[in-house]
Amino acid sequence: MLLKKNIPLKYVFGKIRFEIMLVAVYSLTINILYYQYDVTNLVIPIAVPMVLGTVLSLLLAFRSNQAYDRWWEARSIWGAIVNDSRSLTRQVLSLMDATYQSEDLTLFQERFVKRQAAWCYSLGQSLRKTDPLKGVDRLLTRRELNYLMKYDNVPAALLLLHGKDLKYALEQGWINQYQQIALDETLSRLCDAMGKCERIKNTVFPATYSLYTHFTLIFFILLLPFALIDVLGFMEIPLVVAIASSFLLIEKMAINLQDPFESKPTDTPVTTISRNIEKDLRQMLHEQYHAPEEAEEKPAYYVL
Amino acid sequence: MLLKKNIPLKYVFGKIRFEIMLVAVYSLTINILYYQYDVTNLVIPIAVPMVLGTVLSLLLAFRSNQAYDRWWEARSIWGAIVNDSRSLTRQVLSLMDATYQSEDLTLFQERFVKRQAAWCYSLGQSLRKTDPLKGVDRLLTRRELNYLMKYDNVPAALLLLHGKDLKYALEQGWINQYQQIALDETLSRLCDAMGKCERIKNTVFPATYSLYTHFTLIFFILLLPFALIDVLGFMEIPLVVAIASSFLLIEKMAINLQDPFESKPTDTPVTTISRNIEKDLRQMLHEQYHAPEEAEEKPAYYVL
Amino acid sequence: MLLKKNIPLKYVFGKIRFEIMLVAVYSLTINILYYQYDVTNLVIPIAVPMVLGTVLSLLLAFRSNQAYDRWWEARSIWGAIVNDSRSLTRQVLSLMDATYQSEDLTLFQERFVKRQAAWCYSLGQSLRKTDPLKGVDRLLTRRELNYLMKYDNVPAALLLLHGKDLKYALEQGWINQYQQIALDETLSRLCDAMGKCERIKNTVFPATYSLYTHFTLIFFILLLPFALIDVLGFMEIPLVVAIASSFLLIEKMAINLQDPFESKPTDTPVTTISRNIEKDLRQMLHEQYHAPEEAEEKPAYYVL
Amino acid sequence: MLLKKNIPLKYVFGKIRFEIMLVAVYSLTINILYYQYDVTNLVIPIAVPMVLGTVLSLLLAFRSNQAYDRWWEARSIWGAIVNDSRSLTRQVLSLMDATYQSEDLTLFQERFVKRQAAWCYSLGQSLRKTDPLKGVDRLLTRRELNYLMKYDNVPAALLLLHGKDLKYALEQGWINQYQQIALDETLSRLCDAMGKCERIKNTVFPATYSLYTHFTLIFFILLLPFALIDVLGFMEIPLVVAIASSFLLIEKMAINLQDPFESKPTDTPVTTISRNIEKDLRQMLHEQYHAPEEAEEKPAYYVL
Amino acid sequence: MLLKKNIPLKYVFGKIRFEIMLVAVYSLTINILYYQYDVTNLVIPIAVPMVLGTVLSLLLAFRSNQAYDRWWEARSIWGAIVNDSRSLTRQVLSLMDATYQSEDLTLFQERFVKRQAAWCYSLGQSLRKTDPLKGVDRLLTRRELNYLMKYDNVPAALLLLHGKDLKYALEQGWINQYQQIALDETLSRLCDAMGKCERIKNTVFPATYSLYTHFTLIFFILLLPFALIDVLGFMEIPLVVAIASSFLLIEKMAINLQDPFESKPTDTPVTTISRNIEKDLRQMLHEQYHAPEEAEEKPAYYVL
Repeated sequence: MLLKKNIPLKYVFGKIRFEIMLVAVYSLTINILYYQYDVTNLVIPIAVPMVLGTVLSLLLAFRSNQAYDRWWEARSIWGAIVNDSRSLTRQVLSLMDATYQSEDLTLFQERFVKRQAAWCYSLGQSLRKTDPLKGVDRLLTRRELNYLMKYDNVPAALLLLHGKDLKYALEQGWINQYQQIALDETLSRLCDAMGKCERIKNTVFPATYSLYTHFTLIFFILLLPFALIDVLGFMEIPLVVAIASSFLLIEKMAINLQDPFESKPTDTPVTTISRNIEKDLRQMLHEQYHAPEEAEEKPAYYVL
Repeated sequence: MLLKKNIPLKYVFGKIRFEIMLVAVYSLTINILYYQYDVTNLVIPIAVPMVLGTVLSLLLAFRSNQAYDRWWEARSIWGAIVNDSRSLTRQVLSLMDATYQSEDLTLFQERFVKRQAAWCYSLGQSLRKTDPLKGVDRLLTRRELNYLMKYDNVPAALLLLHGKDLKYALEQGWINQYQQIALDETLSRLCDAMGKCERIKNTVFPATYSLYTHFTLIFFILLLPFALIDVLGFMEIPLVVAIASSFLLIEKMAINLQDPFESKPTDTPVTTISRNIEKDLRQMLHEQYHAPEEAEEKPAYYVL
Repeated sequence: MLLKKNIPLKYVFGKIRFEIMLVAVYSLTINILYYQYDVTNLVIPIAVPMVLGTVLSLLLAFRSNQAYDRWWEARSIWGAIVNDSRSLTRQVLSLMDATYQSEDLTLFQERFVKRQAAWCYSLGQSLRKTDPLKGVDRLLTRRELNYLMKYDNVPAALLLLHGKDLKYALEQGWINQYQQIALDETLSRLCDAMGKCERIKNTVFPATYSLYTHFTLIFFILLLPFALIDVLGFMEIPLVVAIASSFLLIEKMAINLQDPFESKPTDTPVTTISRNIEKDLRQMLHEQYHAPEEAEEKPAYYVL
Repeated sequence: MLLKKNIPLKYVFGKIRFEIMLVAVYSLTINILYYQYDVTNLVIPIAVPMVLGTVLSLLLAFRSNQAYDRWWEARSIWGAIVNDSRSLTRQVLSLMDATYQSEDLTLFQERFVKRQAAWCYSLGQSLRKTDPLKGVDRLLTRRELNYLMKYDNVPAALLLLHGKDLKYALEQGWINQYQQIALDETLSRLCDAMGKCERIKNTVFPATYSLYTHFTLIFFILLLPFALIDVLGFMEIPLVVAIASSFLLIEKMAINLQDPFESKPTDTPVTTISRNIEKDLRQMLHEQYHAPEEAEEKPAYYVL
Repeated sequence: MLLKKNIPLKYVFGKIRFEIMLVAVYSLTINILYYQYDVTNLVIPIAVPMVLGTVLSLLLAFRSNQAYDRWWEARSIWGAIVNDSRSLTRQVLSLMDATYQSEDLTLFQERFVKRQAAWCYSLGQSLRKTDPLKGVDRLLTRRELNYLMKYDNVPAALLLLHGKDLKYALEQGWINQYQQIALDETLSRLCDAMGKCERIKNTVFPATYSLYTHFTLIFFILLLPFALIDVLGFMEIPLVVAIASSFLLIEKMAINLQDPFESKPTDTPVTTISRNIEKDLRQMLHEQYHAPEEAEEKPAYYVL
């Protein structure tokens, strides 16, 4: 799903191209001032950036940890969505029973399972702030689509339709009271997963933390040439650029990971996961499935 | 919900304005003593603040981690409140059934769902130590309001009303015994979320930790000029101020995050979340909802 | 519940008074040996304590983390006890039903809820190794008190009484079979909370860890004067004392946090929490409650 | 299951043989340039690699933590599979009941339990991308094998068969409605475990993190000779090689741990676990079991 | 249960006696080479061991964390076993009911509860690879002992007997169908606990990690004398020994904690916990209990 290979160096450094150039110009300027204009009282002991480097390392480690946790939590939630979608389908197919397997029940089961696939797509799309129903209409009946018109939150409305259908199945005698509760618990778990995704999407990483880390990083880079210029001469420029790149890349990476639903290449692959769910659910329904050929979600390479 | 942009520098540094000035004055004094009055036997090797810097970095990393965890736990609890409110509403709407959808049941469902919205508001407000019923009366009946008078803990009383209504619904035959238990489990989860919020609100971060970290930080800043003055001369002053700012900002940030229910800009946005819950629940009831225009909770910018 | 303000400096440093004096005397001795008796071949490079300082910082960070986790887990367990006590009361009041609300049932409910409050007090007191029934008799009937005589573990016996009462209620027809199971699950959660408290109480923090950390810390302090004496002269004494204090205070704090049920000021406030639970439960029973005025648990200030 | 002893040194260093040689050649070249061709203006202060060493240590610690967590999570999931397989078998044997223990029921139970063993094997094999049914046919009936043909995801299909059999057992009166739900919940837990394994298998560790860590590590090694050459002369070469090895080995180890389903020696031992499960389940069925002698999974030594 | 006091220094250092002597001899040799034979070109800058010290500190911190987590998880699992044993007993005593409390039921309950105590002992003993039935026969009937003969995994077989007894109780009408499911869920939790213990027991800590950490530590100690000899002369020997001891002790401690079921003094006290469980369960049965006086598990002191 995510390709490990083929991350061009250009891509990696492209992200900090601008910052690298700035740092190069900056350390060149210091160098010229120092050697051409003899502004030599600017030297500071290297121990100063070392103290800053320690606190910066810990800040970046903290940052990376929290960003990774957000990313991994997002991925785990979608893993739980896969599991609960399969369990729901298994329950719909194996708990429900008519005295004779009536055609009505078969249609009902098919509608229910397709609606579950639709729920996954629409959740993924509403997290990315695109039309939650785009491309999903093929999985829903006209009546369901009309019903959804009245709601802002399409996935929540689909779960409500699930709930109403369970009530209908109870009235028809296809499920008993315990089975209704068991299926309803699976719906509650799906509702939980939906809310957790929204929580991650809507809660920004504490901006003050990002900002202070960034300030400390800039301050550290600004000091670096003064600590090295004295000993290294012109060699200072590539060294400063390389050290700055190391730190800047780590910060960039944390920023990329911390928002896992933002349509970036490092995103949680919600559409791919949804498509796999649809395929699995259809196989459980004994339907042949041809994945819709949508090129839109296939960038040249994934970085994550 | 929370704005990323537009955090003015003034705001960021405003928080440590006072401390920065003190540090500047302090290092200036040292400088004058050293160069004007030749009190030059005060120099200490820079390795001493480096050792302190390492332990301080670890203390601040520890502090930041725990503060972030408290903040994220608070946010997760409110995420769970969103989920369970929706699940409760779905259950009330799709599990309850009269032989014919009687008007009584419809009214009952509406009252129940509105009470759930009221619960969210009143929980948020009692966490912030404001009147838990302010602005909530529009969601409750007169009778319910009278009942709540007798209680200190309004949200707990609302859950008790939920429980009593479930008993009533069982007596009316709208739900069966299993459905009552299933709905009661959702109430228990809400009761859990309420208690967890209170736990975070009422448990202060170990004061000794805060204090010791603060002492170590002050001690580190006090030593800094003695370690730098010798090499840097007057350049020492801006350097000391900048390094002190880095550390002070990180401490400030942890202090801000660690109490997520204190009506600060970095707070958990309980009112906004409650309003979203109300909107969702009303849509599920097929009601049109116009959010009350309350300007009070809209500061110029959120920092978090 | 816990006061943030008013931690006198005397209290903070009082805890390490003895150690501070020892360190002062020790570094003074070194100083005298060095300058008076010219024992000058004792100087060691400052890099040696720096390496030790790094490993020590990590050991203390590890220690602080685990101690904080124990403390926070203890607090969370008591938070869960609050939640489950409320849920149990709500279930007892709203699930139980007589064909007409008989007086017997009302008395039964009151006895049940008061016994739950008694359970909280007796658990807190047995964790602190005081008489679990002290002051609790006002919440229990004579018959229950007789029953408890036969048990070492009073809280476990109270849960057994809860269970027996549920069986009685089933026989009386006040609850049905599902409701019995639902209530029994709440009892199992309370039983879990009790066992978790006992686990934290009975499991000491690995003594080897504490010991090795302490040894490394002492060794670090012993080396410090030799590394500083050469450069700093008499200024070495206050510096060594201050650095040693930083490290000693952090260790002290971890030791305080790691045993949260030891009747120290940094303890989990089990009696206060129990009193709040009693108040809440009584309000749910519509009883007026006057807290017993027990001065014993009100020290001049809490440090945590 | 995993041997601690007998990890030959050759194996340990064999993994970084190539890198070690490169480093040796590189530092030799620097040495020759310095001493033979007097390119002596290349010296950099050792503080520069020290700052990089700190950030690198933190990156590697972060990396190790996340890799260990993935590995341990994978192991825990398979632990849960063991537990739920046993619980499922216990439930099948002790919950199901015919008015008289009919032969049909006995056959049904045996088929069910063997299918559970087959599920474990097929899950392990499909995680390793080998034929999920290889060697599993001895545990399944011809009819089941035919049914599985239609599915891509064999383990999911086996769970569906479990579900269908529960429905059949309900129709036969061997289980009641509650027992069906209780067994179905166990199936949902197994479905969860399956999905969690797939999540770990399909989610690569963020490639950018791996890459940036690797870049920083290379950069650190490249700088090392310049910092040491001046003081150490030819002794620099073994030192650089040894330090580089320490860091490279830690990175290698994290890479090995982070993908726990890749048929490497450090893998989660899915086949061994499955075989143990089969043995346990057969004993519960009172069957004598002779493990199939498959030599394929017995390498000379396990490294993990 | 675990004694904090009285860990003799001899014990602490006894564990690394051999390593300490080696280090002393080694640094003495270096010293002699340096001062007697003037092999003085061996000096390396102290910054080199400092870099290694940082990475080593982080490796040891990682190691300590994971080892502590394993130990604490093991302790928590046994805590859960205590809780579930009590809950199971409460359920057996308070859920089961005969129309009149028949003697058969009383005997059945007693057999059931004693079997639960036997389960705890046998689990503890099979984790320590001793005879799982040793000393347990007094808690089981002859018939049960015969049944267990056929099983390798005795605790799993005891849970199966629990399950069969529940079926028997259902047939006798002592429990209803919901109660059977509720009790079976408790059995599933016990089965989970058992499997988790086996997972910790059977999964070795990644051997590569242990090995690399050990290599880095040895390399660090080997370098130490070269960095200190120049400045310190003969004082180098005690310093190197002391620093090496600090690091070696931390490694030792992690190794001790990471395998919590290995009959070491730092073990999880499974026999003591089992004995406490038996005492509690017997009191719940209103039986007087005299603990069997087994001296075998009482060493002179516990270290953990």
